[in-house]
Amino acid sequence: MSILIKNGYVVYGENLEVIKADVLIESNKIVEVAKNINKSADTVIDAKGKVVSPGFVNLHTHSPMGLFRGLADDLPLMDWLREHIWPKEAKLTREYTKVGAYLGALEMIKSGTTTFVDMYFFMDAVAEVTLESGLRGYLSYGMIDLGDPEKTEKEVNEALRIMKFIDELDSDRVHFVFGPHAPYTCSIALLKEVRRLANEHGKLITIHVSETMAEIGQIAERYGKSPVVLLDDIGFLADDVIIAHGVWLDSRDIQILARHGVTVAHNPASNMKLASGVMPLQRLLNAGVNVGLGTDGSASNNNLDMLEEMKLAALLHKVHNLNPTVADARTVFKMATQNGARALGLKAGMIRESYLADIAIIDFNKPHLRPINNVISHLVYSANGNDVETTIVDGKVLMLDRELLTLDEEKILNDTERVIGELT
Amino acid sequence: MSILIKNGYVVYGENLEVIKADVLIESNKIVEVAKNINKSADTVIDAKGKVVSPGFVNLHTHSPMGLFRGLADDLPLMDWLREHIWPKEAKLTREYTKVGAYLGALEMIKSGTTTFVDMYFFMDAVAEVTLESGLRGYLSYGMIDLGDPEKTEKEVNEALRIMKFIDELDSDRVHFVFGPHAPYTCSIALLKEVRRLANEHGKLITIHVSETMAEIGQIAERYGKSPVVLLDDIGFLADDVIIAHGVWLDSRDIQILARHGVTVAHNPASNMKLASGVMPLQRLLNAGVNVGLGTDGSASNNNLDMLEEMKLAALLHKVHNLNPTVADARTVFKMATQNGARALGLKAGMIRESYLADIAIIDFNKPHLRPINNVISHLVYSANGNDVETTIVDGKVLMLDRELLTLDEEKILNDTERVIGELT
Repeated sequence: MSILIKNGYVVYGENLEVIKADVLIESNKIVEVAKNINKSADTVIDAKGKVVSPGFVNLHTHSPMGLFRGLADDLPLMDWLREHIWPKEAKLTREYTKVGAYLGALEMIKSGTTTFVDMYFFMDAVAEVTLESGLRGYLSYGMIDLGDPEKTEKEVNEALRIMKFIDELDSDRVHFVFGPHAPYTCSIALLKEVRRLANEHGKLITIHVSETMAEIGQIAERYGKSPVVLLDDIGFLADDVIIAHGVWLDSRDIQILARHGVTVAHNPASNMKLASGVMPLQRLLNAGVNVGLGTDGSASNNNLDMLEEMKLAALLHKVHNLNPTVADARTVFKMATQNGARALGLKAGMIRESYLADIAIIDFNKPHLRPINNVISHLVYSANGNDVETTIVDGKVLMLDRELLTLDEEKILNDTERVIGELT
Repeated sequence: MSILIKNGYVVYGENLEVIKADVLIESNKIVEVAKNINKSADTVIDAKGKVVSPGFVNLHTHSPMGLFRGLADDLPLMDWLREHIWPKEAKLTREYTKVGAYLGALEMIKSGTTTFVDMYFFMDAVAEVTLESGLRGYLSYGMIDLGDPEKTEKEVNEALRIMKFIDELDSDRVHFVFGPHAPYTCSIALLKEVRRLANEHGKLITIHVSETMAEIGQIAERYGKSPVVLLDDIGFLADDVIIAHGVWLDSRDIQILARHGVTVAHNPASNMKLASGVMPLQRLLNAGVNVGLGTDGSASNNNLDMLEEMKLAALLHKVHNLNPTVADARTVFKMATQNGARALGLKAGMIRESYLADIAIIDFNKPHLRPINNVISHLVYSANGNDVETTIVDGKVLMLDRELLTLDEEKILNDTERVIGELT
């Protein structure tokens, strides 16, 4: 299987050089980027007037939550969780969750996301959807024991069951990740056990950390330290850990994250919408911390559009610092692509020979993307997910000219309406 | 001429009630909103699975600036203006500006904007484009005299020339507005003359006010007061004035704006991207000030997408106030529609019998807009301009199923590339 993408503006390599070139894909890798490649290929895509971009890496989401999109907005986090999200989640079945996962996969493919890190329930169902959709997924079961030892064991067993299920799929694209929910919902025993199991099985860990001021207060009261110091003290932190949010980090926290090579998944839309606060992006980057980008779930965003998320990230940090030079377009674009791939130890996130063929082709034949003065600027500041025309993951075309090739779009949209009708 | 829009979810009336209904348009007005309207019409549009929304009112833009999209980002306002925008604007001709205006009109129609307030040069050319495009435009020539009396007279004469040109078009859709640029670029003499002329000719006024801290400093140094107090003291303020930005307003300023019925055009993307600051939205709304929404020009946004702008407005004020309940979806939606129309004295901005037929039909048959749990939430938090399928202004279809009916999209896109090539 080979794909030749002709005549596009290619966002090339680590430095995001924009060149007019062809891209040749063989099997699941990019094998050549050059002008006028004269080779035959199974699929030839004409990308004239289009941009050939690395696919986006959504470093933090809860993909089935699209079901709850718009059901509760403009509320404080705890009201939103307790009165709206948790009661509905309590009614979720495996079947309902699977429909949500299909909706999430569909939305991600349509907006150029090629890889995502997920945390939710019924993750075996999400794994099946990920396998079928063609996406690259890092899937965690969200573990919550609230300090109850019986629950600790149950949660660990469920995580291990999911790990086994996913490992047995034997897919290069579908991976298990440990997902203890957060320091305020997980016991020290659970966190330590996760660390041990991650080492034993060679798996990544993702966890919500320092999302709200309330969390900082709770952890300080319970342990007399910050969530990051707590995690450091129990030996939890390493370069295989992705913390989501990291909104309320002090200088010591940032130094700890940098020292351990922890990645932070920044979720600007969710942090803004839930009024959680503003992540100290500049201080993290200055300290050398790897920062990626995520959308969080669709109930707190309310979409999975990584192009929109880039604009939000850039604009939020400029106004917050009253400094328009921070979070420039190139920095933010790297967060949404290569930094995410780095966190996952994935040779992806850029278009370059020998890298994985995870690509989004974006149609610039549109008024809001013209004139083509600056491709990276247009991607960050003016494009949105609907501009993505073709999505390629692992050398396979998942969407061509906005037509889904792996999933039945109409069926999924109809199923979501049925499910939400039954849930509410 | 009549249009019947069948089977849509209609965002009805001032309270944004969402009802499944048909909408009948005769001539340039909405004449009936009801279930199963059984009347014939010249054009019948099937809106099944789609949302029939009031068109968006972009209360502040510089529509031809799309030409400069992405040419300079991530810079302080004054560097951006002095080193990038002003040198390019100095090379603008009437022809170049007209191409920019076509690009702006195209982008607005494609993203569901039906009315816009503009400030730029060669506004006779912009008026011709507005007339041809079918949009409703309130067009001002941006007057700057920098305290030079000779320049004052020249600027007033140019404004009056444009007024005469636009008045002679004798269009219900294309209106002249006075546009003194800002208190820091206009003399008191110019501002007073504009106020006198606006009264004499019954025209609206739009002006940039309190955009940056630097402006506040300059005006304080020059006049010993705030820009709003200055304008109040010279008798400039009234309910026919739309100030753009209003970022740095103190309590006294806000009281003055409320007392005179001045409208504020909020531009969150531009204020964030240029790091100007955060407008005190809650305090303005609490004081009863009418607040509309604008995109500003595409060089500082970088698009004219009012749907995206709504999300930015909602998210910015939530995180800035650390309060997720402020700038809720309905408040922001009203800012982008009926509040804008109110500022212009226009019986538009809502779907209701006897109101102007300015309508955007938005396709909800898309994963990021499903399930249809909450139409207003989806419009504010998940939709973007590309989701707009059909745009109707003054009872005339300007775009049908994303196909432009009044403008030649391909020609405009090609022209912009040629022009920017000649300009740079």
